[in-house]
Amino acid sequence: MQALVYDGELKVVSDYPAPKAAHDEVVIDVSLVGVCRTDIEITRGYMDFRGVVGHEFVGVVASAGSPAGEKWLGRRVVGEINCVCGKCEMCLAGLKSHCSNRTVLGIQGRDGCAAERVVLPAANLHAVPDTLRDETAVFVEPLAAAFQVVQQVRPSRKDRCVVIGDGRLAQLTAQVLMCRGLRPLVVGINESKLRRLERLGTGCLLAADARPRHDAHLVVEASGSTDGLKMAMEFVRPRGTIVLKSTLAEGAPVNLSPIVVNEVCIQGSRCGPFAEAIGALARRDVDTEGMITAEFPLAKGVEALAASQAPDALKVLIRL
Amino acid sequence: MQALVYDGELKVVSDYPAPKAAHDEVVIDVSLVGVCRTDIEITRGYMDFRGVVGHEFVGVVASAGSPAGEKWLGRRVVGEINCVCGKCEMCLAGLKSHCSNRTVLGIQGRDGCAAERVVLPAANLHAVPDTLRDETAVFVEPLAAAFQVVQQVRPSRKDRCVVIGDGRLAQLTAQVLMCRGLRPLVVGINESKLRRLERLGTGCLLAADARPRHDAHLVVEASGSTDGLKMAMEFVRPRGTIVLKSTLAEGAPVNLSPIVVNEVCIQGSRCGPFAEAIGALARRDVDTEGMITAEFPLAKGVEALAASQAPDALKVLIRL
Repeated sequence: MQALVYDGELKVVSDYPAPKAAHDEVVIDVSLVGVCRTDIEITRGYMDFRGVVGHEFVGVVASAGSPAGEKWLGRRVVGEINCVCGKCEMCLAGLKSHCSNRTVLGIQGRDGCAAERVVLPAANLHAVPDTLRDETAVFVEPLAAAFQVVQQVRPSRKDRCVVIGDGRLAQLTAQVLMCRGLRPLVVGINESKLRRLERLGTGCLLAADARPRHDAHLVVEASGSTDGLKMAMEFVRPRGTIVLKSTLAEGAPVNLSPIVVNEVCIQGSRCGPFAEAIGALARRDVDTEGMITAEFPLAKGVEALAASQAPDALKVLIRL
Repeated sequence: MQALVYDGELKVVSDYPAPKAAHDEVVIDVSLVGVCRTDIEITRGYMDFRGVVGHEFVGVVASAGSPAGEKWLGRRVVGEINCVCGKCEMCLAGLKSHCSNRTVLGIQGRDGCAAERVVLPAANLHAVPDTLRDETAVFVEPLAAAFQVVQQVRPSRKDRCVVIGDGRLAQLTAQVLMCRGLRPLVVGINESKLRRLERLGTGCLLAADARPRHDAHLVVEASGSTDGLKMAMEFVRPRGTIVLKSTLAEGAPVNLSPIVVNEVCIQGSRCGPFAEAIGALARRDVDTEGMITAEFPLAKGVEALAASQAPDALKVLIRL
């Protein structure tokens, strides 16, 4: 099958072995793939991943590895990316997304979805409501990650919130905060991206104009940049919380003494609740209009990843 | 008066101006001063502090700036180090130790206690019970900082806890965790310091023998070293908490992606509850026996700070 593969170099191959479903798994015909910053980081060495890239998709279930999976046949689905053992200490503690033996779609030990077909455990699937177009449903995975912020930190409506970054995840996170009755200040570097958020009702500030304020109860760092944490530290108030979303291949020098002195909490945040994301998209609480800035066929997957790094790019899609 | 001063260079001066008490303040005759890692960091540029160093002390109140302070005259006291305005947003929110206008004894905008006399607001004082010797009471300030850990994070008795570091604050923090029914594993570099903790009942491990474990619910980083956070990240389990205690003049390169992926919480932690520390020392819940490794007169204050950095040093005292 055709697949977008990273093996030290990113390339489209036409003869990648088609995946087979194990007992608890299904094979999905992929319709649409979203490009994420993490895909870019993988091509820079993040997680030492090798294989088919991609972890955001919409598709239709084509076959099942066991009768239990057959109820999914022909259904349009999105899929959670952590494939878990169900038996380790983390799984038994209810922390399945932190399974010690997990594989992660297109990130860790499991081929991703930028291919004609992808395999996932049936337990990872969520049906896409008929009212959601593929082009909206493809946002479920990153939007779930944005909802994880308010799952972990429960801001009150009076809290001052700041989002560092104006890219894909920042755009979604700002809207999730608005769903919770907050009006975040978004600090970014791209005027057109900031304007889009301003139209949706957030506050906006160019990073170049930002001065240390130390008055925000909650700062979400979703810049995908090594400088994001430093800026977050200039906005967060003492005893406030910084939620870290950026995973980067490279570290950066940082002095965390202000975190100690100001007793700030830095909360790492990764995958989130799919059901909540599907519900928010179905209710149109979150607006993805105008967030798709380019679309490529799988044969041009390398160009798709390149295009997603353009200054004005938001979500880039790969269509099968 | 005689004082240990840092003005870009650490030195004992004999003609430092004696401090005067403002309306809400008292003057304290200092009896005993404890040397802290933060004092060392100040001589390396931390906080750009200039003036009398030192923030751990026991003394006797000599005079008061107003009749309200006179009830303290002649009493043996220890003192909280944050001097606050009581009017800013943080103070009004009950977060006085984060007062936006604060001065901090020997750390920020206020002369410290390594001098014949020191001034503090009367509101900062705590009486020392007669049963506590000066040599024990001088541990109140750092022990309060250790108690802050369990004030911020409330570990359950089943939690696996690790303390990174075997120095002064690590020794106190490990004992505070034991007060809460936990048996921490202490990871250090000095065999004699680790043996002292082992005798008190903690687990012990030489840092050189440590391997990534990712199984601790709580890791307290009290190493005073730029490497401490990296080691803490190797011990903490997914969704676990790292409490950061070290304030350092220098930053270090660190990649926080594992914090994101494992959804770890990094909680900065500074000053803590004096009353709890006094109570624990009075009940002998915390053992400071053997923690005083050297004592110097104020005239030898420079040597005292140097001695506190010796590999086998724990608490070094300066006696007035």
